[in-house]
Amino acid sequence: MATTSSATTPAAEAASAAAPPPPMLDLTIDNITPNTIRINDQAADARLRYLMARLVTHLHDFARETRLSTREWMAAIQFLVATGQICSDVRNEFILLSDILGLSLLVDNIDHPKPPGCTEGSVLGPFHTHDAPTLANGAAMSTDPDGEPMLALCRVVDPAGRPVPGVKVDIWETDSSGHYDVQHADRTAPSERCVMVSDDDGRFWFRGIKPVPYPIPHDGPVGKLLQRLGRHCWRPAHVHFMFEKEGWDHLITALYLRGDPYETSDAVFGVKKSLVIDLARVDAATAATYGVPENAWLLEQEFVLVTKDETEQLRDRNAVTALKDLGLRMKLVDHLPVPDVD
Amino acid sequence: MATTSSATTPAAEAASAAAPPPPMLDLTIDNITPNTIRINDQAADARLRYLMARLVTHLHDFARETRLSTREWMAAIQFLVATGQICSDVRNEFILLSDILGLSLLVDNIDHPKPPGCTEGSVLGPFHTHDAPTLANGAAMSTDPDGEPMLALCRVVDPAGRPVPGVKVDIWETDSSGHYDVQHADRTAPSERCVMVSDDDGRFWFRGIKPVPYPIPHDGPVGKLLQRLGRHCWRPAHVHFMFEKEGWDHLITALYLRGDPYETSDAVFGVKKSLVIDLARVDAATAATYGVPENAWLLEQEFVLVTKDETEQLRDRNAVTALKDLGLRMKLVDHLPVPDVD
Repeated sequence: MATTSSATTPAAEAASAAAPPPPMLDLTIDNITPNTIRINDQAADARLRYLMARLVTHLHDFARETRLSTREWMAAIQFLVATGQICSDVRNEFILLSDILGLSLLVDNIDHPKPPGCTEGSVLGPFHTHDAPTLANGAAMSTDPDGEPMLALCRVVDPAGRPVPGVKVDIWETDSSGHYDVQHADRTAPSERCVMVSDDDGRFWFRGIKPVPYPIPHDGPVGKLLQRLGRHCWRPAHVHFMFEKEGWDHLITALYLRGDPYETSDAVFGVKKSLVIDLARVDAATAATYGVPENAWLLEQEFVLVTKDETEQLRDRNAVTALKDLGLRMKLVDHLPVPDVD
Repeated sequence: MATTSSATTPAAEAASAAAPPPPMLDLTIDNITPNTIRINDQAADARLRYLMARLVTHLHDFARETRLSTREWMAAIQFLVATGQICSDVRNEFILLSDILGLSLLVDNIDHPKPPGCTEGSVLGPFHTHDAPTLANGAAMSTDPDGEPMLALCRVVDPAGRPVPGVKVDIWETDSSGHYDVQHADRTAPSERCVMVSDDDGRFWFRGIKPVPYPIPHDGPVGKLLQRLGRHCWRPAHVHFMFEKEGWDHLITALYLRGDPYETSDAVFGVKKSLVIDLARVDAATAATYGVPENAWLLEQEFVLVTKDETEQLRDRNAVTALKDLGLRMKLVDHLPVPDVD
């Protein structure tokens, strides 16, 4: 006989972890959740047990609170299948789905908390690739003749303002039509994307184009969902940056142009005030120094990285506080919470 | 500025539905949920608004309670992509995922409640197809020479025991190797599946084979998940039945063989005591009547259907009770709950 207790709290889940799964018969609306959790508790990994227990609880509670119909369930199944089927090497519709549901922003905020004064994170989005060429400082990363030329002069520093050299910086943006290179069927090589390395003074600089607002891909299941939700699919103009160096917290961020029509309604919730910037114009001296046209757009930015240790400590502190506020008795193992059953 | 209230209860969501979405800037762990709900509340359809509000709340609560890491999030994204990519016209890995998480069972129980004495439902599974041939009563629905012959003598009745004629009955089972026809790459035509229609006395009968236990497809993402969870992937021997007739509640069910090694540990939670049956042996008279070998297996079963009206009334009553118990103030529109904001 199936267990009939309603163990849907994390504490109850943890307590039941050791018991062998009961016979699975006559499962009902009321007992399916604790029984599914019990079966999954055969997993060896405590973190996986916790993730699955919470997943099953939320999934089942969702169905119970909405009295989900078979027809709606089937529509959801078909939506998920379609979302998976449109994915390719250069398109990830599930990341897009996570983005428009606010999950990507949330996970980044949880995993990469920032001390005051450090550069905030933003959403990765589905268009980062691993084939961007590594370019020398000063190189052009755009091949688009229709883009408005933009010189970017950037610097990577630590919270004390000291340069951080040798940082691998991934940079990507759309072309002037609002499309990433991978969205063009005839793409033969990467464009509007590159990898640079900060120099001894923490500096990196490149020639790109002024970013433009663009719609996220809306010809797939996520676009159809946005339409049914009465939401637009636009992102404000931005350039993506990703920073990697051993010992420093991985930073995924973007810079947004002030005054963009979508500045306060980004379809994927990525905009933070501290990441909204004004472009200037290149003066004659700068134009001569960097070999760009005078009066081209100029982006100047200092990025402040935080060490991996400091981020980990901050994340751990935030986790302990949040879980306590949620009334959950947890311990951190490898910096991730699992039920504290001892 | 983003709203900072933490509107995660259905009542609060409903109350906020009318307001225009606020500017979306500086979204945080604490305010992303109400803001995402506000944006989605632009949807015209009240039921969709409610479904999305609860989905977003549970998705975000899951991330907050688990302090989901970027790495785990990416593993989940990759799992979902792989699950979608393995789907085909004859394989639905998302239904399989729903099955092993207990969601399919739960939704069927919510949507198709059964009054006492009526045949209970079971999981549809991912192997129903729409190309099964309609066969006359008495026909063979299996072409497998290795299967143990089984005669099935069935009848469809109403709760008062009166025959229900003209019911379309979908029947499907595996071959003797434990595979559905669609799992064979060289499948050219349907086998071990058919559609029959109950006669004036509510009867339908066919020649099949004794069902065998089989593993659900475990060469894909769902199989890998089961393995990591320490769960086996077996289903006890069963035959699927699906009943359709205008005015009667759609019944998806299955009959399970008593004594099967997986009778109490079905990987997809489908077994109910009332659906566990004993096979008998065909006697000489029956063998002569139906043209089957004497001593072949005999399955005899009466299926009790319930009217659509009665199911709807029961579902509505269950919904009202459940939502009240959950403390949710809801009304039913087209038999599905939406927040009652009047």
